[in-house]
Amino acid sequence: MNEDPVGTERAGSARLFHLNGELVPAAEATVSVQDRGFKYGDAAFETLRTYGGDVFAWEAHADRLATTCELLELDHGIPSERLHGRIQETLDANGLEDASLRLSISRGVQPGSLDPHPEMDPTVVISVEPLPRGGIGGDAVWEKPATLSTVQTRRVPNTAIPAEARTHNYLNGILARLELRGSDADEALMLDAQGRVAQGATGNVFAVDGEGLLTPALSGPVRPGITRSTVIDLAAEEGIPVREATIQPKTFREAKEVFCTNSTWEVRPVDEVDGASLDTGPVTELLAHRFRERVESAFY
Amino acid sequence: MNEDPVGTERAGSARLFHLNGELVPAAEATVSVQDRGFKYGDAAFETLRTYGGDVFAWEAHADRLATTCELLELDHGIPSERLHGRIQETLDANGLEDASLRLSISRGVQPGSLDPHPEMDPTVVISVEPLPRGGIGGDAVWEKPATLSTVQTRRVPNTAIPAEARTHNYLNGILARLELRGSDADEALMLDAQGRVAQGATGNVFAVDGEGLLTPALSGPVRPGITRSTVIDLAAEEGIPVREATIQPKTFREAKEVFCTNSTWEVRPVDEVDGASLDTGPVTELLAHRFRERVESAFY
Repeated sequence: MNEDPVGTERAGSARLFHLNGELVPAAEATVSVQDRGFKYGDAAFETLRTYGGDVFAWEAHADRLATTCELLELDHGIPSERLHGRIQETLDANGLEDASLRLSISRGVQPGSLDPHPEMDPTVVISVEPLPRGGIGGDAVWEKPATLSTVQTRRVPNTAIPAEARTHNYLNGILARLELRGSDADEALMLDAQGRVAQGATGNVFAVDGEGLLTPALSGPVRPGITRSTVIDLAAEEGIPVREATIQPKTFREAKEVFCTNSTWEVRPVDEVDGASLDTGPVTELLAHRFRERVESAFY
Repeated sequence: MNEDPVGTERAGSARLFHLNGELVPAAEATVSVQDRGFKYGDAAFETLRTYGGDVFAWEAHADRLATTCELLELDHGIPSERLHGRIQETLDANGLEDASLRLSISRGVQPGSLDPHPEMDPTVVISVEPLPRGGIGGDAVWEKPATLSTVQTRRVPNTAIPAEARTHNYLNGILARLELRGSDADEALMLDAQGRVAQGATGNVFAVDGEGLLTPALSGPVRPGITRSTVIDLAAEEGIPVREATIQPKTFREAKEVFCTNSTWEVRPVDEVDGASLDTGPVTELLAHRFRERVESAFY
């Protein structure tokens, strides 16, 4: 992976984390073993992409974080502007402009066991990793297209944990990825309880058929990806019909094109679904290009 | 809650934790914010009860922990005897004999993001809380019978995360408990995706009808509780018929007796299910008594 060197970029071991309002080195970036984020995965998070020193779609991420916190009744009390300020401080302190950030808010340490208390001293963590420059002149963060394989692990239904909530309970995706060990595949195609396509382990999936673009509807256990909605907007601008629908795995296996999206990957082509080879097609290339154009014009 | 004072018992703030082979005070009992246990809840755990300085059913807990680790492909490489030794050290260092312990093993800090690496430097944490003496002469850890209310949050299906795995992904139970806020209920009656009774937020549930004892079968999203299986054994010894079955919520609402089980609570009677009052009946009392007799004879 290319790194984009800026004057004062800190190497991995010297990187600074933002922890509860302070910038600290890795050795001090710790939480109590009693933190509910560690004990129960009782925490909200967002993965953010920055370009040229600014966060992509901050308002959308802030809204989604607020939704997660509402669903968890995790009232951390920190204004969104302050979180945004801490993100900027983290970038500046690490001398980074093009990066992937993870912002996590846990319920912190509380007395008792499972029942959360309404009052909390939240744990707020921001960590950062350098990425290559984005936009028209930049490089993709992935080395090659994704190879998808349908896994047995089904997505957690919305009735158990709403897919809208981005939380530290991530074992469902980890179990999916573990199924790929020893295979050529590097991303899981996850189905819902009824066997319909939901998403990847760590992002959304799109297919292209003779009628346009297809992606699983958010009524299923599908995370409302910000890159997903950006791509849907871009397709509409290009006059490409988009259907958010209930989709069988067969549709993905027989598609003309397939791609994945998330904040870090942006638009990542897929070269194989369950052993069926695919070329990176014109719709994928167009949307990937339009995404980069949008980034270029807004951030560089 | 009564505490059982022993000569050198340490108060809460002075309590020692066992962290990666060392006994440390709370301020040093921390994990990296990059620990996969914090980031993803990617960790196995067991809750253990000790009586008179010894762990109840250690072999069963060690087996279940091994099952969890197999399901997560979390090969920590620490022999079960060593874990048992650390538990004893934790008890001794805190001057405790009757306690609840939590033993957690996370995959630690690993490079990259979601995909776990087979090689790991695991994080191993043991924490302890004092409990009253158990057995015939002891006190229950709960102040009153449980009040159950059926919640909307459904259990995570086994196809998404197997219920056999005891992990730090505990938001499903937390969301269930959050639904009880502002009500008189203190334990959730959780149903599976098909609307059948599964378990409580933090333990198993039993009902008594005219034919004997009933509890949800382990084919559903039901954790294989060690207290659950002990109670089933005790019922068999008493000649009480036990059915592990698919059970509708109506059966619990109309039962003669209902009780909950977990390692800390042992057998806890239920005084209300969805507003229908219940007395603590003879079967619950008999099984609770037999459980205490077994503890008394084995540990004191």
